[in-house]
Amino acid sequence: MEGVDHLAHERNRSQFDVDAMKIVWAGSRHAFEVSDRMSRLVANDPAFRKDNRAQLPRKELFKNTLRKTAYAWKKIVELKLSEEEAARLRFFVDEPAYTDLHWGMFVPFVKGQGTEEQLQKWLPLAYKMKIIGCYAQTELGHGSNVQGLETTATFDPKTDEFVIHSPTLTSSKWWPGGLGKVSTHAVVFARLITNGQDYGVHGFIVQIRSLEDHSVLPGITIGDIGMKFGNGAYNTMDNGVMHFDHFRIPRNQLLMRFSQVTREGKYVQSDVPRQLVYGTMVYVRKTIVIDASNALSRAVCIATRYSAVRRQFGSQNGVETQVIDYKTQQSRLFPLLASAYAFRFVGEWLEWLYTDVTQRLGASDFSTLPEAHACTAGLKSVTTAATADAIEECRKLCGGHGYLCSSGLPELFAVYVPACTYEGDNVVLLLQVARFLVKTVSQLVSGKKPIGTTAYMGRLQHLMESSCKVQKAEDWLNPSIVLEAFEARSAKMSVECAKRLSKFTNQEEGFQELSPNLVEAAVAHCQLIIVSKFIEKLKGDIPGKGVKEQLQKLCSIYALYTLHKHMGDFLSTSTITPKQAFLADDQLRSLYSQVRPNAVALVDAFNYTDHYLGSILGRYDGNVYPNLYNEAWKEPLNDSALPDGYHEYIRPLLKQQLRNARL
Amino acid sequence: MEGVDHLAHERNRSQFDVDAMKIVWAGSRHAFEVSDRMSRLVANDPAFRKDNRAQLPRKELFKNTLRKTAYAWKKIVELKLSEEEAARLRFFVDEPAYTDLHWGMFVPFVKGQGTEEQLQKWLPLAYKMKIIGCYAQTELGHGSNVQGLETTATFDPKTDEFVIHSPTLTSSKWWPGGLGKVSTHAVVFARLITNGQDYGVHGFIVQIRSLEDHSVLPGITIGDIGMKFGNGAYNTMDNGVMHFDHFRIPRNQLLMRFSQVTREGKYVQSDVPRQLVYGTMVYVRKTIVIDASNALSRAVCIATRYSAVRRQFGSQNGVETQVIDYKTQQSRLFPLLASAYAFRFVGEWLEWLYTDVTQRLGASDFSTLPEAHACTAGLKSVTTAATADAIEECRKLCGGHGYLCSSGLPELFAVYVPACTYEGDNVVLLLQVARFLVKTVSQLVSGKKPIGTTAYMGRLQHLMESSCKVQKAEDWLNPSIVLEAFEARSAKMSVECAKRLSKFTNQEEGFQELSPNLVEAAVAHCQLIIVSKFIEKLKGDIPGKGVKEQLQKLCSIYALYTLHKHMGDFLSTSTITPKQAFLADDQLRSLYSQVRPNAVALVDAFNYTDHYLGSILGRYDGNVYPNLYNEAWKEPLNDSALPDGYHEYIRPLLKQQLRNARL
Repeated sequence: MEGVDHLAHERNRSQFDVDAMKIVWAGSRHAFEVSDRMSRLVANDPAFRKDNRAQLPRKELFKNTLRKTAYAWKKIVELKLSEEEAARLRFFVDEPAYTDLHWGMFVPFVKGQGTEEQLQKWLPLAYKMKIIGCYAQTELGHGSNVQGLETTATFDPKTDEFVIHSPTLTSSKWWPGGLGKVSTHAVVFARLITNGQDYGVHGFIVQIRSLEDHSVLPGITIGDIGMKFGNGAYNTMDNGVMHFDHFRIPRNQLLMRFSQVTREGKYVQSDVPRQLVYGTMVYVRKTIVIDASNALSRAVCIATRYSAVRRQFGSQNGVETQVIDYKTQQSRLFPLLASAYAFRFVGEWLEWLYTDVTQRLGASDFSTLPEAHACTAGLKSVTTAATADAIEECRKLCGGHGYLCSSGLPELFAVYVPACTYEGDNVVLLLQVARFLVKTVSQLVSGKKPIGTTAYMGRLQHLMESSCKVQKAEDWLNPSIVLEAFEARSAKMSVECAKRLSKFTNQEEGFQELSPNLVEAAVAHCQLIIVSKFIEKLKGDIPGKGVKEQLQKLCSIYALYTLHKHMGDFLSTSTITPKQAFLADDQLRSLYSQVRPNAVALVDAFNYTDHYLGSILGRYDGNVYPNLYNEAWKEPLNDSALPDGYHEYIRPLLKQQLRNARL
Repeated sequence: MEGVDHLAHERNRSQFDVDAMKIVWAGSRHAFEVSDRMSRLVANDPAFRKDNRAQLPRKELFKNTLRKTAYAWKKIVELKLSEEEAARLRFFVDEPAYTDLHWGMFVPFVKGQGTEEQLQKWLPLAYKMKIIGCYAQTELGHGSNVQGLETTATFDPKTDEFVIHSPTLTSSKWWPGGLGKVSTHAVVFARLITNGQDYGVHGFIVQIRSLEDHSVLPGITIGDIGMKFGNGAYNTMDNGVMHFDHFRIPRNQLLMRFSQVTREGKYVQSDVPRQLVYGTMVYVRKTIVIDASNALSRAVCIATRYSAVRRQFGSQNGVETQVIDYKTQQSRLFPLLASAYAFRFVGEWLEWLYTDVTQRLGASDFSTLPEAHACTAGLKSVTTAATADAIEECRKLCGGHGYLCSSGLPELFAVYVPACTYEGDNVVLLLQVARFLVKTVSQLVSGKKPIGTTAYMGRLQHLMESSCKVQKAEDWLNPSIVLEAFEARSAKMSVECAKRLSKFTNQEEGFQELSPNLVEAAVAHCQLIIVSKFIEKLKGDIPGKGVKEQLQKLCSIYALYTLHKHMGDFLSTSTITPKQAFLADDQLRSLYSQVRPNAVALVDAFNYTDHYLGSILGRYDGNVYPNLYNEAWKEPLNDSALPDGYHEYIRPLLKQQLRNARL
């Protein structure tokens, strides 16, 4: 079967230049080239195989990850890979490991919060991995509410040290990745106490294991917190628990860019603006949005290819119908395909936003920060929630076989879902967005001009009064009509919330009471951003035969699907009429038919190797069934004809001899 | 900490008689008593422990299940348990095993499809478990479309045998539980061919393993299909693959109640009405609906208790706020609590429906069958889909800790989700419902009176014209107003579909094209059934202080939450006005506050033991954190301070000696 391509027919009928689309998806030719090279490097190296991951017991799984991580680092050093290349290589290795926290949290956080002197001491060690760092913030009893952390760091002027202590069981650090078994150092968050006064939560660099024999240092207790959701998945990571018993660190291991404690124990704020912290938050959350498009596109790629392979019911010339030809399948799958592209482009825009924010912060311009913060928080929430649901929907779209680990989808789901909780619980974040929106509305009266993604609020009067212009289904293809509908819906929902809030004498009480509605208003605002950035992207030059046309269809699908899903919002705010809602549905169905011949090519454009996809159902060549069949025989239970336990538990039962059996 | 109850305060403030509610939940005092006794029997026997299930590698996991299954059967025999008691015992053992298929599919199917002679031969063997049976229907390439199965059973008049054969790779039986390692017999579905003619798919009893040494019989190849979603979960089951190479069985192993093949090879239909088959389908699907309420209530119980234990943000007297006090938490959790009760009562009603259908079938009255079939198919779809989503939502409602296997929620999700696919893919089933609805609408013209759950269609004129009477929020507490709104929405959606369909010259083409809308109409109809059966339940006598009041609130929450979620339907059909939609939201928030003090007691009423729940977060005593902490140390990775792999993969990296390391 070597060289066969069961999806060749699908590829031949596509109506656009796939190679050009690959560049669009990657963001640039350079980004494409690096990704392509790194993904092949990983895929072609048997050291990075992962097809047995779901079968390994925890200890073997974890040891195997240690091996891959060391091997990857060896490759990175040997091949003298750039930082960008190294990051892509780790990405395609596709296995959560302590390095994610070392490079993704420890290094950036030290960079952001350390003084020049501290950077000079710690960064060279970290860059060479002479030390391995993790990020110890959350505690057993404290997740979302960082200000409620209980760990203390009490300054002892006698010895010029901080005493790190866990006063209660619930103050045990809990969850930090890389902590359980590997890291030598941690950024530990603790309440800074000096001269009897509590100055709130600060970050400290704490060595936790010996660099000689890796033993946990005296005064610290550390363990792994145990199995997490799914096979393989995040069980390759040593999420840990850590308890301090009056553990001492030198004073200068308080990260001191923003505040210091003097030799005498005096707490001093530096003149570096604290708003800079938000820069890091914007950075982390934009990364999460881009990750959402990665995970979503992967699931969609698997489901789309298998939907083209799989046949069920119907019959043309004795062959059953490809399930991708069913409208029910299309109406569930294609919106997710469109969402993958939509999230990709909003992520690309967030890259720009982050650069912009960073430049402004450098020039001490904090004016755009609240808006940038709200919009990254909201987009993090909306894209991760949609992606988690979408992966599971893709699994269901593959029928029964999606339930097999060899489909790749169960592990993808299990490894992805924490994104809804970490770096800000999705609902907590939406409430932050809602606060910002309500504030924006209330400031309109005073003439304050809303900026950035809230600029449309400046046209509130117009949005409240105007009516949707759609008269026939095709009118829904007009980007400005779509955009205005999303703007009007969002504006009206925010205004409605503000109006209801104003009836409460206690604003905070009102906010609590109306929080479910506020969350919905925040979602509406974020969906508007996604739609508007997709539309914006399409205003630019996009080369390649048929590429822009396909993206236009996907943009319309994303918008109209979202409109359909939240029809209640659009109708209850009288943004559109029931008739217009029906027309949107009609247009949507027509778009599905138009995208159908391009579906497989649109997922090919993600340029994923079979290694990265890790799915028999999603194989590039569509040769699913022989491979599913062969894969089954690798199951350890098939090592012997008789199952272990036959003689003790099956035979006595069949022979009616259980009475005397020892069970 | 022995005897401490961290949730005592919650229990003390509840406003109803929990013991009386337990009876309501169980369905009767008798059912409660049996469940209570069996669940304690299992919980108190260390042989049934399951707290290490997520950590076991497949082989050990499977062997352990064989042990538990044999032990359970030994108990059942020793204690002379009734059929009802045995089923409850297996239920509370809470571990998928070959016995599920033996008792749940093999025995009922043989009973339903066998002749008197066949029953006398096979049932005694099966009842004593002298043989173990499974149900081999689906194939590698054929799931939903049973008529497309490829396995053949060709009659050979020379030897008076059927020759069972798998002509292609895709015809391999794939998925049957209990097949991979354990079953000695299978009901095999194959195309019956005699005299060169294909009579379609029939069931055959096939012995597949030797009763002496358990070896797979010559001419058959069998294996386990490998790892499935999740830790523990369905990996305790030996779902299998089976390939036949001209395997011969005696002619009389065709299940012959409905049709036979004579000694000469003539195919003869019996005079037993084929409609009887639908009785079995109604039976299986009603069981699935009841299972949905089990799984959902379990997840809700965990999330509710932990939401009362967990505190985050806010501060009263220095203590953070219980997360269950947040409206966002309530607005996500309480509708699921209400859904658990709603699905329970509709399941109870399906029990009645099944009895009714069975009696009618006995009297050759097939008149209610299409309606009964449509409504069980639809309810299976709607309740399983909602439950799968709800379990994951409950996991998210537990914050980060819900991601730990020790929360019980990951395994519950993984073990539950197949219900959306097996026994009829949920979308395929909804399309069947939609066909029935459209047919019902089209027959109204000819004066045919709709029956059962479609009786409301008989008042179509009234429903199309009447307008919702709600003027203030409390009006939404009126059951008849709510019921009429759901009836009107459903009727209008079905009529709209019928109207659109009539514009197609090719009905089947129209049906395909409009299938996404048809699915939505079917969902609307099923939600109406759930609401109406809840309301009906409340019309009866329900003893116990405050019990009925609590159920009334839950009924209103289920209805108004569903209305909110599908607001687009209600508004686009002009069933309610935007103003009325807002009032429904207001009423919903008020109901959340009313249910809040009763939440913990309402999940206590499920009467689940800590063993059955299998969740540290959901412990009855609420003593979560010390137990989470202690549980972590059981993780095998914590057996040694240094992780396996330190010397090979961590030390060389830290010591900058990777260059020479063998990785």
